[in-house]
Amino acid sequence: MKLVLFAVALVAVASPLLAEDGASIAEDFKPSSLNQPGREYPQVNSQGYARFRIEAPEAQSVRVTLGGREGTVLEKGDDGAWVGTTARPEDEGFHYYHAIVDGGTFNDPGALNFYGSVRWESGIEIPAHDEDFYALKPTPHGRVQQVLFPSPSTDSVRRAFVYTPPGYDADSDERYPVLYLQHGWGEDETAWTNQGRAHLILDNLIAAGRARPFLVVMTYGMTNEVRWGQLREFKIDAFEKVLVDELVPYIDEHFRTLSDQPHRAMAGLSMGGMETRLVTLRNLDKFSHIGLFSGGVITPEDVEKTEGFRDRVKLVFTSCGGREYPDRINANHEALVAAGVPSTAYVSPDTGHEFQSWRRSLYELAPLLFRD
Amino acid sequence: MKLVLFAVALVAVASPLLAEDGASIAEDFKPSSLNQPGREYPQVNSQGYARFRIEAPEAQSVRVTLGGREGTVLEKGDDGAWVGTTARPEDEGFHYYHAIVDGGTFNDPGALNFYGSVRWESGIEIPAHDEDFYALKPTPHGRVQQVLFPSPSTDSVRRAFVYTPPGYDADSDERYPVLYLQHGWGEDETAWTNQGRAHLILDNLIAAGRARPFLVVMTYGMTNEVRWGQLREFKIDAFEKVLVDELVPYIDEHFRTLSDQPHRAMAGLSMGGMETRLVTLRNLDKFSHIGLFSGGVITPEDVEKTEGFRDRVKLVFTSCGGREYPDRINANHEALVAAGVPSTAYVSPDTGHEFQSWRRSLYELAPLLFRD
Repeated sequence: MKLVLFAVALVAVASPLLAEDGASIAEDFKPSSLNQPGREYPQVNSQGYARFRIEAPEAQSVRVTLGGREGTVLEKGDDGAWVGTTARPEDEGFHYYHAIVDGGTFNDPGALNFYGSVRWESGIEIPAHDEDFYALKPTPHGRVQQVLFPSPSTDSVRRAFVYTPPGYDADSDERYPVLYLQHGWGEDETAWTNQGRAHLILDNLIAAGRARPFLVVMTYGMTNEVRWGQLREFKIDAFEKVLVDELVPYIDEHFRTLSDQPHRAMAGLSMGGMETRLVTLRNLDKFSHIGLFSGGVITPEDVEKTEGFRDRVKLVFTSCGGREYPDRINANHEALVAAGVPSTAYVSPDTGHEFQSWRRSLYELAPLLFRD
Repeated sequence: MKLVLFAVALVAVASPLLAEDGASIAEDFKPSSLNQPGREYPQVNSQGYARFRIEAPEAQSVRVTLGGREGTVLEKGDDGAWVGTTARPEDEGFHYYHAIVDGGTFNDPGALNFYGSVRWESGIEIPAHDEDFYALKPTPHGRVQQVLFPSPSTDSVRRAFVYTPPGYDADSDERYPVLYLQHGWGEDETAWTNQGRAHLILDNLIAAGRARPFLVVMTYGMTNEVRWGQLREFKIDAFEKVLVDELVPYIDEHFRTLSDQPHRAMAGLSMGGMETRLVTLRNLDKFSHIGLFSGGVITPEDVEKTEGFRDRVKLVFTSCGGREYPDRINANHEALVAAGVPSTAYVSPDTGHEFQSWRRSLYELAPLLFRD
């Protein structure tokens, strides 16, 4: 969350830069909202271009990984700082990146860090036309609570974050449904609030009366040491044990939950969607609402071969970015509807396998949960 | 908090390195407990030496800022990685540092980051002989809750973290005292848990029956744009308004507190100690216990000229590292005691102006609070 607003820093240049297509790049760059306090760079402009400035006066080469497959090569200026602008606009929303300085991987000293790709990476925010739904506003705010829970199966104390909605502490008789919400590969339990702004999305939906207040529980889902590209070998058993046998009972004991199946949902992004599919299909006595964000689908065949599915599942929500596989999402959704399964599909316009797709997916899913 | 333990990585060398004093450096280096997941470097050994390894194959020079005033210059190995070991053991506990790569300031890609010096810095942990008191143990754990509170005086929504002790949610009739705990210059509201492990210190003291369960509230104290070296120009008014007029009422409204003066304390480290002194002396109707960690003293003259001090203040706790100004702390303490003021002084052995002094200070202060 960014609490300090910086003044717009206009960069005066003699002649405007030209983008790849010959259009001019608007010189209205200002610091990314995810910069470290007081840092002027990286910057973004009104068209979605990003500009970087990294000081390393004796370096031989500096580039950043944002800006197409090759990233953006920075040029050294007279002041010893390396500067460069992406060749085309970036998609709206949050992006991970890092800098390559003389062949080494470092973070941009100007940007805040976010856990992704199994490391703390630099993050940048391209202002989105719909950013209002995850903005910090002067409405009542829920809390994000760090809990440390015992995990006998992994012989450790594990961490989860629990979003409790505004008013949770005001009425000690009220009980709440729970959404278990999983991050993607290489991320951790900090991702859904830091990158995803899940708490602000819920605050805003609840303030607008569009979602029922519920808890959101986020924990670490990479209990197996699995590398990207090896996800087919992923075994759900270890994480299923932590989540279903250890965390769910802990949450139901320590928070005022509605602990029956109709009031428990699970959703996840990417690998977290894969986990959600595996865990829910094996535990339909515990979960009634299922959300897969850029994380595959539940097919009519899954429905047929999973005992009790039709009686127990209240909602199958599947989504992806418009640059991913919207045809597959939509076709499967139509097949589910034709098979009489309560399905909702969502495609995030003009985004890929990135957090803007998943912020929007949560925003679309939350109003559909626990509508009894 | 580190939840994953790494195997010891032994580094085989032909002949042992010699320290500055000619003693040999034990080759029992293992990854720092504050490394990013899976990272082998930086490492620490049983004597308190730190070893760094940073990949930047085309760099001209790499050094890190830990290891005396000049830091530690790394040498490039055949594999393109830069390696170096501090010339002498570091003090026990947490240290900030960063890397200088070709003249640019970057974080060590192997280490986790901690907010200090007005930026997210790399952190390293030198195992301490007394580290048990801030270790993560299988005891009941309190929670660290992120709250977003309205601040009309700064026209913003501000963040605080609130530690609630184990059992806070079990008995909805119990009410708790509150300690307001401030970070130092260049840090923020994340410091006392991330660097200081305040939540684990309290968990452990409460589990041992040595401290009364109370809330700890941590918020951002650098409301003025003040640079290091300009602290004499610091004005307390803006922060005092946020803390006393906005945050304290918010906490008393939204948490089950004992909201009278005998059950409210304030403490802080370094600049946070300076803030604590200024805020408490101006608001003795609201605070009864005062803790200054490496943050100056309250003198007998302060006591004389502050109306109501003798009636209202239950404890003045002052501390510093043994490498700071223990004589001043002890002499002032003796003067306070001679003047009949309830004073406790603490000097942290063999530490400087660093978090190990402040972890220990909190550990010493907590059992003395709210003993009615």
